[in-house]
Amino acid sequence: MTVIHPVVLCGGSGTRLWPRSRKAAPKPFLPLVGDSTLFEATLQRCADPAHFAAPVVVTGKLHLGHVEAQSAAFPGTSVIVEPEARNTAAAIALAAAQLPEDAVMLVCPSDHHIADIAAFREAALAAAELAAQDWLVAFGITPTAPETGFGYILRGEPLEGGFRVERFVEKPERATAEQFLADGNYSWNGGIFAFRAGFLMEELAKCRPDIAASVREAVAKGRTEGREFHPDAEAFAGIDGESIDYAVMENTQRAAVVPVAMGWSDIGNWQALRDAREADEAGNCTRGRVELVDCRNVLAETDGPRISVIGLENVAVVVDGDEVLVTTMEGAQKVGRLSGAAKQ
Amino acid sequence: MTVIHPVVLCGGSGTRLWPRSRKAAPKPFLPLVGDSTLFEATLQRCADPAHFAAPVVVTGKLHLGHVEAQSAAFPGTSVIVEPEARNTAAAIALAAAQLPEDAVMLVCPSDHHIADIAAFREAALAAAELAAQDWLVAFGITPTAPETGFGYILRGEPLEGGFRVERFVEKPERATAEQFLADGNYSWNGGIFAFRAGFLMEELAKCRPDIAASVREAVAKGRTEGREFHPDAEAFAGIDGESIDYAVMENTQRAAVVPVAMGWSDIGNWQALRDAREADEAGNCTRGRVELVDCRNVLAETDGPRISVIGLENVAVVVDGDEVLVTTMEGAQKVGRLSGAAKQ
Repeated sequence: MTVIHPVVLCGGSGTRLWPRSRKAAPKPFLPLVGDSTLFEATLQRCADPAHFAAPVVVTGKLHLGHVEAQSAAFPGTSVIVEPEARNTAAAIALAAAQLPEDAVMLVCPSDHHIADIAAFREAALAAAELAAQDWLVAFGITPTAPETGFGYILRGEPLEGGFRVERFVEKPERATAEQFLADGNYSWNGGIFAFRAGFLMEELAKCRPDIAASVREAVAKGRTEGREFHPDAEAFAGIDGESIDYAVMENTQRAAVVPVAMGWSDIGNWQALRDAREADEAGNCTRGRVELVDCRNVLAETDGPRISVIGLENVAVVVDGDEVLVTTMEGAQKVGRLSGAAKQ
Repeated sequence: MTVIHPVVLCGGSGTRLWPRSRKAAPKPFLPLVGDSTLFEATLQRCADPAHFAAPVVVTGKLHLGHVEAQSAAFPGTSVIVEPEARNTAAAIALAAAQLPEDAVMLVCPSDHHIADIAAFREAALAAAELAAQDWLVAFGITPTAPETGFGYILRGEPLEGGFRVERFVEKPERATAEQFLADGNYSWNGGIFAFRAGFLMEELAKCRPDIAASVREAVAKGRTEGREFHPDAEAFAGIDGESIDYAVMENTQRAAVVPVAMGWSDIGNWQALRDAREADEAGNCTRGRVELVDCRNVLAETDGPRISVIGLENVAVVVDGDEVLVTTMEGAQKVGRLSGAAKQ
């Protein structure tokens, strides 16, 4: 059985969950669903030594403190500290270039919620088997709504445990998303991937030889400090910031998809967070001192002051330090554009 | 020309404007509209020495500090300190029993907003003339909406400067309020009255001899300390708490009404406050650090933390110390029932 090397990506600032998520304490490191942070839950999902090796975390200097603190309970965790953010192709390649060529890596974003751990595990094992046979495997999340905020993957001919990828599709218009949902052969691209490390580097070298070469140089000239690895800053600085999807997945002939329904959410805004949490009969979910009167589908949470809400529906009320956010669920997508979120 | 003695009533806690209005800092003493507090504006309206004598303020111990501080700019102000709250009949009678019998008093609640000062003055002078002729005069506020939260006054035969009162009407049902509004002969009872002090005491002695006697005793046994007068607590404690409307106005044969349209509001809830304030083109009015996106008719105010609101309409967001209130304007009437407002 293939041993899986979790590669956990900790970038991004999660401004759409402002003011709870802030630059200094961003989304992956907050206990947004349940008692664990999203980052801790990501490590926990891969903590079974029967299937998983110790994780490799790829992050930046800003988040290093959170990573160290929250990964302490997961022995053997190593950390690659990016000198600066260069998108997912570079981040994943850093890990791939450091791992043994035959290691199968499972790339996991650290800021997603997955309700059904068993389904995740099953898909991870299937994806690992395909990756061991030199497929570049994407998890294909079974869509539950005509989302326009995600890329889609159309499955092609069946493989053992998955499908060949017929086509990657950019974020669609609403009508197209509805067709995809009805069609049944489209999955969301959730950014979870399984690769054989050596094969990913080969394919990257074919598709984007510049990125592959720079990453190899940054790794070769890098230095290890305890459990941290610091790629060479100068070599890394020249790398194009590109997603693994653009750089490799959409260009390779060996893309596969493993469909999975696992209660997945990217917790991409306050509405998504409310949906991921347990709610009461009226659809409300609260944290901290909150009193609701005549409310439905209200998310209200506070780190201190009491919140009292009367007569509202489909609204989020969030109090965090010196910021108070009140938004319709529809308007939640605009949170990142608030001056508070932008200037933090 | 009749000199008018303003009698300013400072009772009540204004829980419907919680969390801004609190027991320790209630509605009359807050700058809710413009820069002056409602209490200061009440004194200011009667500050013209051509028509008005120095005011008498009737209040309780709890509010004495606010009264002293905010009346400092109005020389000659005297204060009657009620040992405990006993509703308006007792409060007004305390002032009446202390004033010369021929003094014409103008009873002014301290927590109302009046936009048109000239109209107020004109009505006050007309009411004073009637009061000097031993009419018990109520201001009749010209209704601007079918309000169900106020009592109404039906005017009868005309008098010089006003009308005889045909009938006082309890808070009506909505349909009745609509009839009143259409009828044109009904006014709101705003709790503003003009009386000759001696005549009010005579009528009170006829209608409620117990209240009149207890007030006279409390005054006779009371003590003066500087500008404060303290009625005798024991004599006062036995007084029934009754409104001047129930105790006298609805029973006397000498009730008159002076109709007046003066941009009056009792600022009885957050919606009324928004209506009394200046709003921008979208109907929003804000105080403190507030950012609104796609909002209409939103009142947002904060004493510290920034408020950001997206996509809401007809909503009030109020941050005060350790309390955050979010309510629909429709729900604003329920604010007083929140546990925060009740338990303060």
